[in-house]
Amino acid sequence: LIRTWEPNLAQYPLIGIEDEEFASFKKLFTRQEVRAVTLAKLKLQNDLVLWDIGAGSGSVSIEASNLIPNGKLFAIEKNSQYVTFLKQNLDKFCARNVKLVEAYAPEGLDDLPDPDRVFIGGAGGNLEEILEQVDRRLKGDGLIVINAVTLDTLTKSIEALEYHGYQIEVVCINVSRTKPLTEFKLFEAHNPVYIITAWKGAE
Amino acid sequence: LIRTWEPNLAQYPLIGIEDEEFASFKKLFTRQEVRAVTLAKLKLQNDLVLWDIGAGSGSVSIEASNLIPNGKLFAIEKNSQYVTFLKQNLDKFCARNVKLVEAYAPEGLDDLPDPDRVFIGGAGGNLEEILEQVDRRLKGDGLIVINAVTLDTLTKSIEALEYHGYQIEVVCINVSRTKPLTEFKLFEAHNPVYIITAWKGAE
Amino acid sequence: LIRTWEPNLAQYPLIGIEDEEFASFKKLFTRQEVRAVTLAKLKLQNDLVLWDIGAGSGSVSIEASNLIPNGKLFAIEKNSQYVTFLKQNLDKFCARNVKLVEAYAPEGLDDLPDPDRVFIGGAGGNLEEILEQVDRRLKGDGLIVINAVTLDTLTKSIEALEYHGYQIEVVCINVSRTKPLTEFKLFEAHNPVYIITAWKGAE
Amino acid sequence: LIRTWEPNLAQYPLIGIEDEEFASFKKLFTRQEVRAVTLAKLKLQNDLVLWDIGAGSGSVSIEASNLIPNGKLFAIEKNSQYVTFLKQNLDKFCARNVKLVEAYAPEGLDDLPDPDRVFIGGAGGNLEEILEQVDRRLKGDGLIVINAVTLDTLTKSIEALEYHGYQIEVVCINVSRTKPLTEFKLFEAHNPVYIITAWKGAE
Repeated sequence: LIRTWEPNLAQYPLIGIEDEEFASFKKLFTRQEVRAVTLAKLKLQNDLVLWDIGAGSGSVSIEASNLIPNGKLFAIEKNSQYVTFLKQNLDKFCARNVKLVEAYAPEGLDDLPDPDRVFIGGAGGNLEEILEQVDRRLKGDGLIVINAVTLDTLTKSIEALEYHGYQIEVVCINVSRTKPLTEFKLFEAHNPVYIITAWKGAE
Repeated sequence: LIRTWEPNLAQYPLIGIEDEEFASFKKLFTRQEVRAVTLAKLKLQNDLVLWDIGAGSGSVSIEASNLIPNGKLFAIEKNSQYVTFLKQNLDKFCARNVKLVEAYAPEGLDDLPDPDRVFIGGAGGNLEEILEQVDRRLKGDGLIVINAVTLDTLTKSIEALEYHGYQIEVVCINVSRTKPLTEFKLFEAHNPVYIITAWKGAE
Repeated sequence: LIRTWEPNLAQYPLIGIEDEEFASFKKLFTRQEVRAVTLAKLKLQNDLVLWDIGAGSGSVSIEASNLIPNGKLFAIEKNSQYVTFLKQNLDKFCARNVKLVEAYAPEGLDDLPDPDRVFIGGAGGNLEEILEQVDRRLKGDGLIVINAVTLDTLTKSIEALEYHGYQIEVVCINVSRTKPLTEFKLFEAHNPVYIITAWKGAE
Repeated sequence: LIRTWEPNLAQYPLIGIEDEEFASFKKLFTRQEVRAVTLAKLKLQNDLVLWDIGAGSGSVSIEASNLIPNGKLFAIEKNSQYVTFLKQNLDKFCARNVKLVEAYAPEGLDDLPDPDRVFIGGAGGNLEEILEQVDRRLKGDGLIVINAVTLDTLTKSIEALEYHGYQIEVVCINVSRTKPLTEFKLFEAHNPVYIITAWKGAE
């Protein structure tokens, strides 16, 4: 196994990059702790193909690329407010095996190689269409991971995944992090995130 | 960067290994989700030295070794009930850069190289003594991560770390995971884990 | 305002009765903390009519009856394993204004006065039918509160409530309580409960 | 049991009053859900004496007074920013058995009757002094309930309570509540609150 180039490891960790290090639109990105759990749920291995749909500021793609430098990662994002920051972040963290696909999924997916893993961090209003497309293309032992912060996305995702015959696990992550308040440490809650993992075949 | 050997990537993911895959004593091990966050907090980089004190069944060391195959990892554990399973797990997951140190910390730490990262998953009754030793040996830009499941360990850890002049962040992780209940998905809570990260220098 | 009898206040609090005080089948009852939040969501007032559908061991009805001794409460439960304990509990806590209705809802609801408040702690497989009936009978400024512990009940409840034109608030409660572990205090998580509150009219 | 006056039940519930109904300084008050659990932990009964130390906007005192109209409640608060709102709220909710004590505890406690229950929602910097005073005055079967939102208050409270020989239970409450986000329901987390309950005697 030979890595022909390497991520920016002198300065940044493989995973656990501080939230402030990511350029972002209105602080809309996956928080450090939830990102770590999301990567765990994606069960990344050596040279997989990963689609990151609604890549936002790219924080998940970037850490995933640190984990699998031989993988093929595609960050699909159309919203121009995100794309600017996404490009900055891919540069900053030398995420050279992440290819930016500027498209509004499910558009743009046709030209990509079949995925082993699909992460959906943001689906706009197209969740059903995206999942239909993903379902056709996902490899047999593949995995879909969806992060939902609204009850509606949670409900719709499960409905659509069950319709397509997936097994489903849902994990709800509640994180609170201390932050200095005068000389005290206040526990500050992050909004909960529902991480849905779906796969075909026996449970 | 050349990896001269590789972890068992054909079968298992780098991180996110299923809990059931680890041999363990009374199911006492760090759960998948908390393990992922713990690894993120450890901010692992290429060839660091990591001490895993109270390594238990070794799940954190094993995934850390997948992340930094060039790192030097030391799993310190004395409890014979754990050691048996720890050895099995290191074998199973080909964690070749994890060295088992059968000692009751702070014993056994003297012979190890100075650490860049220290993870304390279990400290027995020796937390203060261990932190004293760790504080003398930790490199300047090093990090200590402690997982606490009791209020007492949380309180003692913070007191001792502040005494030694560390900056501290505490994160509380509450995870609930769906499990099948007849045809339903019941949300089942895991006990919360407090992940304490400590470092010297400016906040 | 004259109370003609009084609950067993010498021994027990109005709300916050210890879980262990309730006779129960397989410890299936609403925990103290979630019970308190449920009662808050029910917004109880002086002489309301409350239907407690799937009353289980009756813990919600009992504390509700302490709060509104002039109210008319109906505990609807058919499962004979629960009914035995429910009767014991109603006796023990002198919940004299709770009437036990041994029926499998929506059966049995026809004979009851129109409700101001409806609490659904357990709906068996009949959630849709129950909500249809409840919707026909609930007074104009009434409230429905549903506790869900499975994703399926959460999803179905919301779907049915929205179908009937209700405004909805969902609260997810995660409680961990210390319990002695040797000389330590272990944080032990209770399974999360989703408390759904629904009402007609403007949000 | 005769109530000689009654709370404003026509408009407001006994417990579960909406957060927005309370006048407050910078929205610093105990949230509806946590208030309910706090009241449950206080195990209120008919005619108890309750000290509410650091009463803030008075939300706990007000709902407690609804529960025990025959009780004697003392809301101790000095901060003038809070006192203004506290007075408004006591008026609005007709909490006639709550006496406002404008003092900076432990000052002002000397003149009050011995308490059956003590709630500490805010202790300023005087936690140890307050607990010393409370410990001298609390009746034999009394209860102390403390709400902590910082790690420091949590730690100090437990230390001081154990020093005075109390048994302790700590409950951590994590609440997330849906709020409308365009047409979706976003789960919004409230900061976690640690509710500490302490009592003398056998566990």
